Amino acid sequence: MAFISLNSDEPGVRSLFRYRPETAGPLNELVEVLLCGESSMSRGERELIAAYVSSLNECRFCFSTHAAIAAAHLDEGMPLVEQACANPSAAPVSGKLRALMDIAGAVQRGGKAVTQRHVDAARALGATDMEIHDTVLIAAAFCMFNRYVDGLATYAPDDPAVYAERARRSDGYVAGLAELQRQA
Amino acid sequence: MAFISLNSDEPGVRSLFRYRPETAGPLNELVEVLLCGESSMSRGERELIAAYVSSLNECRFCFSTHAAIAAAHLDEGMPLVEQACANPSAAPVSGKLRALMDIAGAVQRGGKAVTQRHVDAARALGATDMEIHDTVLIAAAFCMFNRYVDGLATYAPDDPAVYAERARRSDGYVAGLAELQRQA
Repeated sequence: MAFISLNSDEPGVRSLFRYRPETAGPLNELVEVLLCGESSMSRGERELIAAYVSSLNECRFCFSTHAAIAAAHLDEGMPLVEQACANPSAAPVSGKLRALMDIAGAVQRGGKAVTQRHVDAARALGATDMEIHDTVLIAAAFCMFNRYVDGLATYAPDDPAVYAERARRSDGYVAGLAELQRQA
Repeated sequence: MAFISLNSDEPGVRSLFRYRPETAGPLNELVEVLLCGESSMSRGERELIAAYVSSLNECRFCFSTHAAIAAAHLDEGMPLVEQACANPSAAPVSGKLRALMDIAGAVQRGGKAVTQRHVDAARALGATDMEIHDTVLIAAAFCMFNRYVDGLATYAPDDPAVYAERARRSDGYVAGLAELQRQA
């Protein structure tokens, strides 16, 4: 049970969006830009980075949510997402994405864990400054979301089908928030 | 020197706001609600929590920035801020604020580090559900900002007077972003 009395039985961060709409707005706009906005990285690649950081932080709700969305946007689906999150250095993804996941993993440990070596490696494999920037901010943002969701002990469904069904219906984060608010 | 080529010589997160205005908007709206919006916690108390988490993450730019703003809003000024961040359990602040700082410290370690015991202790000292919620989200948000600022190795001025002067002129985060964008 969550640590505070929530005003809905929505799972995970959705219960917190319902509880505190004033912060839900900017939080959803942030992930909308980072994960769905214009970018040279695909939606699937960006959702995979979000899922990877959430797996490192052992946040079941965020991992399951973003793994399902990544799987829906990557040709190789959930087997690739699970393999990449468990062992990114051996995953059959591009060298550039592997290097960006390496940066994201460093960010999860702490800002100072990112080194010039990480950045040089990503750049040598074709990463642009904007891709490096967005990778750092996606990873940092999920270090926030994971702590928000678990720090208040919100409910995370067990059944992967719940997350897959939501991923199938997902039309972006700002639209998802508007739908959540219409149901209220 | 920062890991990516920035388009200004602004320090810390301000250089990143200038580089990526699309994410600067929601990031500033989030801290505006959390640190300056309507709340039963004072501005000084909320800035102190932001400074405390930034000190735990050893992020010099964010710590110096929010310590200076907290000091400007608390009667006891910087000596209290430094004492509270170094050893919150011995700081001359209310028991409620001490318990909320304890929750923030747990969030800094990870979402799952927050326990029912932390929450019960804060509630016994008068913390409301909304105060507990906002403390968790402030702490989580600074785990993001600290990683964003240091993960891209942005520049942090050494001189405390730089931060004190900015704190003195501070009129909130959304207004600060608008000023930064006018200068561009």
